[in-house]
Amino acid sequence: MSMGTMSLHRVCGVFVFLSLCLIFIPPRCHGGNILVFPLDGSHWVNMKILLEELHARGHNLTVIREDNSWYIPEKSPLYTSITFDSKESFEDMLGAFLQEHMKMQREGASLMTFFRLTMHLLSTFSQVHSLWADATINIFEDQNVMNSLKESKYDLVLTDPTVASGLVLAKYLKLPVVLNVRWITSGDGHFVLAPSPLSYIPVPGSGLTDKMNFIQRVKNMLFHSIILFQQKFVVEPCYETLCNKYIEGGCDIISLLQEADIWLFRSDFVFDFPRPTMPNIVYIGGFQCKPAQPLPADLEDFVQSAGEHGVIIMTLGTLVNALPKEVANEIASVFAKLPQKVIWRHKGERPSMLGNNTLIVDWMPQKDLLGHPQTRVFVAHGGTNGVQEAIYHGVPVLGIPLFFDQYDNLLRLQERGAGKILQLGDVNGKTFEQGIKELLHQDSYRQNIQRMSRLHRDQPMAPMDQAVFWVEYVIRHKGAPHLRTEAYKMPWYSYYCLDVLLLLLTAVTVLLMSTVAVFQFLCCRRQRKTKSKQN
Amino acid sequence: MSMGTMSLHRVCGVFVFLSLCLIFIPPRCHGGNILVFPLDGSHWVNMKILLEELHARGHNLTVIREDNSWYIPEKSPLYTSITFDSKESFEDMLGAFLQEHMKMQREGASLMTFFRLTMHLLSTFSQVHSLWADATINIFEDQNVMNSLKESKYDLVLTDPTVASGLVLAKYLKLPVVLNVRWITSGDGHFVLAPSPLSYIPVPGSGLTDKMNFIQRVKNMLFHSIILFQQKFVVEPCYETLCNKYIEGGCDIISLLQEADIWLFRSDFVFDFPRPTMPNIVYIGGFQCKPAQPLPADLEDFVQSAGEHGVIIMTLGTLVNALPKEVANEIASVFAKLPQKVIWRHKGERPSMLGNNTLIVDWMPQKDLLGHPQTRVFVAHGGTNGVQEAIYHGVPVLGIPLFFDQYDNLLRLQERGAGKILQLGDVNGKTFEQGIKELLHQDSYRQNIQRMSRLHRDQPMAPMDQAVFWVEYVIRHKGAPHLRTEAYKMPWYSYYCLDVLLLLLTAVTVLLMSTVAVFQFLCCRRQRKTKSKQN
Repeated sequence: MSMGTMSLHRVCGVFVFLSLCLIFIPPRCHGGNILVFPLDGSHWVNMKILLEELHARGHNLTVIREDNSWYIPEKSPLYTSITFDSKESFEDMLGAFLQEHMKMQREGASLMTFFRLTMHLLSTFSQVHSLWADATINIFEDQNVMNSLKESKYDLVLTDPTVASGLVLAKYLKLPVVLNVRWITSGDGHFVLAPSPLSYIPVPGSGLTDKMNFIQRVKNMLFHSIILFQQKFVVEPCYETLCNKYIEGGCDIISLLQEADIWLFRSDFVFDFPRPTMPNIVYIGGFQCKPAQPLPADLEDFVQSAGEHGVIIMTLGTLVNALPKEVANEIASVFAKLPQKVIWRHKGERPSMLGNNTLIVDWMPQKDLLGHPQTRVFVAHGGTNGVQEAIYHGVPVLGIPLFFDQYDNLLRLQERGAGKILQLGDVNGKTFEQGIKELLHQDSYRQNIQRMSRLHRDQPMAPMDQAVFWVEYVIRHKGAPHLRTEAYKMPWYSYYCLDVLLLLLTAVTVLLMSTVAVFQFLCCRRQRKTKSKQN
Repeated sequence: MSMGTMSLHRVCGVFVFLSLCLIFIPPRCHGGNILVFPLDGSHWVNMKILLEELHARGHNLTVIREDNSWYIPEKSPLYTSITFDSKESFEDMLGAFLQEHMKMQREGASLMTFFRLTMHLLSTFSQVHSLWADATINIFEDQNVMNSLKESKYDLVLTDPTVASGLVLAKYLKLPVVLNVRWITSGDGHFVLAPSPLSYIPVPGSGLTDKMNFIQRVKNMLFHSIILFQQKFVVEPCYETLCNKYIEGGCDIISLLQEADIWLFRSDFVFDFPRPTMPNIVYIGGFQCKPAQPLPADLEDFVQSAGEHGVIIMTLGTLVNALPKEVANEIASVFAKLPQKVIWRHKGERPSMLGNNTLIVDWMPQKDLLGHPQTRVFVAHGGTNGVQEAIYHGVPVLGIPLFFDQYDNLLRLQERGAGKILQLGDVNGKTFEQGIKELLHQDSYRQNIQRMSRLHRDQPMAPMDQAVFWVEYVIRHKGAPHLRTEAYKMPWYSYYCLDVLLLLLTAVTVLLMSTVAVFQFLCCRRQRKTKSKQN
C-alpha cells in the first residue's frame, strides 16, 4: 500500500469515526454570556471552580458581589464584576455566628442546647437573608447597573440559591436559571423539587439516615416542621419587599426555585443516600476533585520521614479561625504519642503540648496530601469539599463536625463504615485517641472508603463535564422547561389528590347509605306485610 | 525539531492526555457473562439491538427462549441459547388477541367497548403470564439446564420484566439484575419504583397527559385502581406456584422488581412527560436510533421522483398482518389523490383503490426512509421504536394507535404539536385526508418535531453507550445496591408515615383534651367557690 493510499484510508477512517461521534456530541457554546450571582464565603470556593472551567471553555462571565466582599475579588481574569453596596459584611455576621455556635456546642448535647442552637440558627438566617435582600434592593435601585444588566443580553443566570437574590434578579430579567447547590436554608433543595417521603429521606440537619425506626421518623417529621416554619416565617418575609416592589405580581422563593431550569447538585449517590430525583437535577458531587500533584519538596520529605506508619492530616476548614484552646491542647497531646507524622492546619495560638511529629501549617495542599499514598487518616470538620475529596482519594475520615451540614456529611461516611464522628462537645484526649487509633488500625474503614472511591470514579462522564454540559445545554436551548414537572403549578390539595379522594369517598358513602336505605325500606315493607298477614 | 524529538513530544502529549482521560473512563468489562431472559415478539427487536452491542464489546451471552419461539432463533452468532418447552405459542396467543382487539376498536369508543377491551386485555394478560410461569417451571424442573445455569457463573441477568420469569430465575440464582423495560403489565415500572403522584403522572393506558383537570384526575385514579387490581388478582397469582415451589420463603413480583439493580428505561424526557425518577433508572430512549444509510437504488429513484412534494411513508408495525379491508381501501384512495409519493408497508390483500403514486412493500428500510430529506410525514401505529425514530429524524407523525402503549406514545407527540392521533374507529377517507393534509401543510408540526429531534440528540452521552456502561457497571461492582432506596423494605403505612401522623394526632388530641379538662376543672371550682360564697 502506498503512503498516499494509506493517508487517504486514514483520512476516510478518521472522517467516518468523527461523523459517528458527532451524532451525539453536541455543538460547543462558545461565547455564552453568563450572569453569576454567587454566595460569598466557602460557597464561593465551589462556584469559582465551576467558573474557571466555564471561562476556560470560552464563556463570558459577569459576577455580582458586595462591596466589602469576603472571598470574591473585584478584579479577576475570570470575570468582570458588578459591585453593590451592602450595609453589613457577610463575613463579620457569619464569623460571629460560628464562634458563638461552637461555644454552645462545647456545652454538650441537651434539649436546651438544641433549642438555643436552633433559635440562634434561625435568627442568623433571618439576618443573612435580610442582608442580601436589602443589598439586592440596592442593585434594583441603581439605574446604571440595571440598564447595563438589561442591555448585556445574558444567556442565563448561574446562582447559589442559599440566598434568593440571584433568583429574584433572574425572574426580573426573564432569564433561564442554573443553580449550583448543596442545600438551601429552607432545607434540602430536593424537598422543593422532588417527592421526598419523610419515612426514608432524612431532613437536612436532623442527623438521621435513610434507615429510621419509628421514633426517628417522628423526629424527622418534627425537623420537617421546623424547616417549613423557617421557610414561611423566617426566609420568605425577608424577600417580601423585594418581591412586591420589583416583580410584577409578586413572587415567593419556593416558586422561584421550582422555576429553575437545571439544578447542579454538589452530591451523588455514592456519597448520599439514594432518593427520588428529577430530570432537571444533575449530580455533580466531587466535580472539584482532581488527581494529586507532587508535594513541595520539604513537605514530601516530611511525609516520607513517617516511613511505614504514614501520615495523619488534620484541618477544620477555612471558616474556623481557632479551636477552643483546651481542645487544641488535648488533640496535640494525643498526636504527640503517635508513631505517625501529623500535618495540622491550625490557626491561632500554638498548642503547648505539641509533639515533634506534628507540623503546624497555615495552609496545606489538601487534595495533594489526600492523594498521597502515605496518608492514613484525615481529621476533618466534614465540609462538603473535604468529604468529597476524601471519597475521591479513598482516605478514611475522623470527623469533628462544627456547623450546618457537616454532621450530615460525616454521617454518610460513618453509615458506610468509611469514617467516624466525634462530636465537638465530646472531644477530649481519651475519645480523640480512641477514634484516631480505631481509624488507623481497623482495616475496614480504609476498605470501605476505597470501595466508595472506586464507585465514585466509575461514572459515565466526569461530574465537571456534566456541569458544563448542562450549563451549555441551557444556553443552546434557551432554558430547559421540558424537564420540569407540572407539579409545581398545582395547589397542594390537588397535588396530593385530596380533592379526588374526597369525591371518591363521598361517592362510596352515598352508595353505601343508599344501599342501606333501600334494604331498610325493603325490610320494613316485609315486616309490615308479615304483620298485616298476622293480623 | 528532529523527527525523534517530535515523536517523543507527541508520545508524551498523548500519554498525559490519556492519563487525564482515564481518571473518569472506567475499565472495560471484557468477557462479562450475561444470562438474558427476553420477552418474545416485538420486545425482542429492542433486546436484540442491545445484545448486538454487548456482543460487539466482548460479552458472552446466553439467551433463554421457548421451543416454538416467534422471533428468537435457536442458533445465532450473538449468543448460545437455552430452549425450554412451552405448551402454547406466544405468537398464536398474542396474534389472536390483536385481531380481536382491533375488531372491537373498529366498533368505536363507548363505555361498553372500553369495558370489553379491558376484560379482554386482563384475560390475555392472565394467559400470557400463566404461559410464561408454566414454561419457567419447565426450566426449573430440567436438572440438566439448572445445573448448567448454576455452573455457568453468570455476572448478571438481563431481562424484560413484562413477564417475570427472568426475575424469578435471577432471584433463585442470586444474581444481579438489569432490566430492559418500556412498561410492565402492572403499569409503568416507575409506579413500582419511584413516587408517582397521580395528580400529574398519567397511568399508562389512561390516555391522559401530565396536565389533568379534576375529572381527568378522577379518571387517572380509577385507572390506577384497575392496575392495582390487575397486579394483585391477575399477574401475581400466575407466579404463585413458581415462587412458592422454587424460591425460599416465596416471592412476589413487585418485590423482585424493586430489587433490580439497574432499570434501562426505553424512554427519555424529550419524549415522555417529566416525572420523579430514581438513581438506578437510566433513560435510554432512542438507543436504537442510527443515522440513515443510503436507500437501495430503485427506492431512491422512487423517492426522488416525488420532486418538491416529497414522500409519505406508512407502516403499522410488525404485529399487524392486515388492516380491515374497508380501512385499507379508504386510505389508498386518499393517497391516490395526493401529489406526494407514498411508500406503504402493507400485508394482506392489495387495496383496490391504489393510486399510481403509491408503492406497496412487504418491508421497508424504515430508519433510512425517516432520515431521508424527502420524507414529509410518517403514518404509524405508535410503537415505541417508530416514535423514537420519528423524533430522532424529526418527521411529524400521523398516528393510528392499535394496542397497548401506542396511544400513549402518540399522545406525547400530539401534546407537543409534533403529531396527530386518528383513532382506528374514526379512520375513514375524510378524517384521514384531513389529518394527512394538516400534517403536510401546517408547518408547526415539522418545526416542533425537529425541535424535539435537536433536544433528543443533545445528550451528554449516546443512550446506547449509557445502556452498555450501566450493564458493565453492574458486572464490575457485582450489583448496584447503593442506588436503591430503603423505601421498598417498609410496610406501606410506615412508607406513608401514617403511623407517625397517628401518633402526632393522638398527642395533639390528648393535649387539647387535657387543656379543656383543666379549664373545666378550674371553672367548676370557681363556680363552686362563688356558689359557696353566695350560700
